[in-house]
Amino acid sequence: MTGFVSLVGAGPGDPDLLTRKAARRLAEADLVLYDALVSPEALDLAPRARRFPVGKRAGRPSVAQATINRLMIRSARRGERVVRFKCGDPFVLGRGGEEAQALAAARVPFEIVPGLTTAVTAPELAGIPVTHRGLASGFAVVSGHAEEAYRPILEGLPPGALTLVILMGLGSRDAVARLLVARGWASETPAAVCLAAGTGRARTWLGALGDLATAPVDEGSPGTIVVGQVVAVAEAIAAAIGEDGREPAPAGRPPARASLARVTRVHREPAARRAV
Amino acid sequence: MTGFVSLVGAGPGDPDLLTRKAARRLAEADLVLYDALVSPEALDLAPRARRFPVGKRAGRPSVAQATINRLMIRSARRGERVVRFKCGDPFVLGRGGEEAQALAAARVPFEIVPGLTTAVTAPELAGIPVTHRGLASGFAVVSGHAEEAYRPILEGLPPGALTLVILMGLGSRDAVARLLVARGWASETPAAVCLAAGTGRARTWLGALGDLATAPVDEGSPGTIVVGQVVAVAEAIAAAIGEDGREPAPAGRPPARASLARVTRVHREPAARRAV
Repeated sequence: MTGFVSLVGAGPGDPDLLTRKAARRLAEADLVLYDALVSPEALDLAPRARRFPVGKRAGRPSVAQATINRLMIRSARRGERVVRFKCGDPFVLGRGGEEAQALAAARVPFEIVPGLTTAVTAPELAGIPVTHRGLASGFAVVSGHAEEAYRPILEGLPPGALTLVILMGLGSRDAVARLLVARGWASETPAAVCLAAGTGRARTWLGALGDLATAPVDEGSPGTIVVGQVVAVAEAIAAAIGEDGREPAPAGRPPARASLARVTRVHREPAARRAV
Repeated sequence: MTGFVSLVGAGPGDPDLLTRKAARRLAEADLVLYDALVSPEALDLAPRARRFPVGKRAGRPSVAQATINRLMIRSARRGERVVRFKCGDPFVLGRGGEEAQALAAARVPFEIVPGLTTAVTAPELAGIPVTHRGLASGFAVVSGHAEEAYRPILEGLPPGALTLVILMGLGSRDAVARLLVARGWASETPAAVCLAAGTGRARTWLGALGDLATAPVDEGSPGTIVVGQVVAVAEAIAAAIGEDGREPAPAGRPPARASLARVTRVHREPAARRAV
């Protein structure tokens, strides 16, 4: 009997924002290999599985990609149901394509179960639409992890013509902001840093591109940077969902858990611009 | 008593790819206002709600945005739970930001429930990762609906430096391909058209940018265009999930419904290039 591997997107963290299919795959899994940033509450949906962390996290050793592939393949060949549980979406900056290629090459049956990508969802949960009529008809998503990866893209992007979303870029936010301003982006362009989106600790910094380096963030935490006029839309929306965006209390049932609230604490920085 | 509005993303179509939160909001809803392309199976999750189509569809009259806003607000003020059920993600090219602004201005309590965006999920279900190590560290998403919206973005994008995803662009695929080639994109750049992703009728055309105009598509259908080297990854992955990507049959249970299979029929076009 051959097993089966599901490459499953965990979305931004809130287990309520998993897809129904992801939840079912977790419930049925024999083995879950999970990224470091996946939430414990989501893992609780896999009660019968052996669960192993394999993810990368800044400053800590991680399991080599070849080892992850080998674990998936070996377990599936033993007839097990394997969930490779990945932050956000498996095919957005998560090496899911490489894992799919390895499974295909090994002739192990597999599927891809998409998840909400942080690139869209982190801004969204902070009240920022990545597109908005009259402000942006498109958006670009870039990894801020390595300069050789982001520089050729950012150098070419038409300044201000679309929303820019940078994942894994907290540590390089100063360099990214300088590069963009040098390429013609206005330093007053609204910018946001969305931290721990989809968790109870979510908070958002709103400011301008020129002030991005001053955003108070823990660089070891996950964060999403957004640059573009759409960020200006956030204030009204975030205030509304911050005050009112609790779970609607169903008749006769207690109010929702705090972890499900989408309250966004908006830190507004002084408008003063730094010379970038 | 005040009601509550949920702006809910329906994802690509398969009701199994709704989030758990979206499914719960549908189950509790009194009123569902849905986009034309939302699947009937997903609407079946809202058995107690009054359900009204309000979406735009090529060639047919649609309900004005102001009317949609008014319906949501009026129903919420009557104390109802309203789901505004939108294709893909509410904040990606769907005017969800405008709806959120209208609700905030009317002081109606609301929330945003993200959905899988077609921009990532349609390629993904066809085996195409929008990012892939060594091929693309980022991607751009653009609406192909109106030339004045896409032209300034496409003219500025650095050729080949990132994956390009075009939504609502089947009708303009010839113009888009000509524009990209004129701006320096190689006409041999791999390209794909993903049709009816997330439904049982899903199919994918794989070819090259220079042949995009010849892709056999029904321009009234939803389709997602992908341009970039990542498309070349699809063949091995799509073949694997096409052959093997059925639901794993649980012990003692019947095999999965056909609508849940992620079989992708790949149409490979002749390599001959048109002069664009």
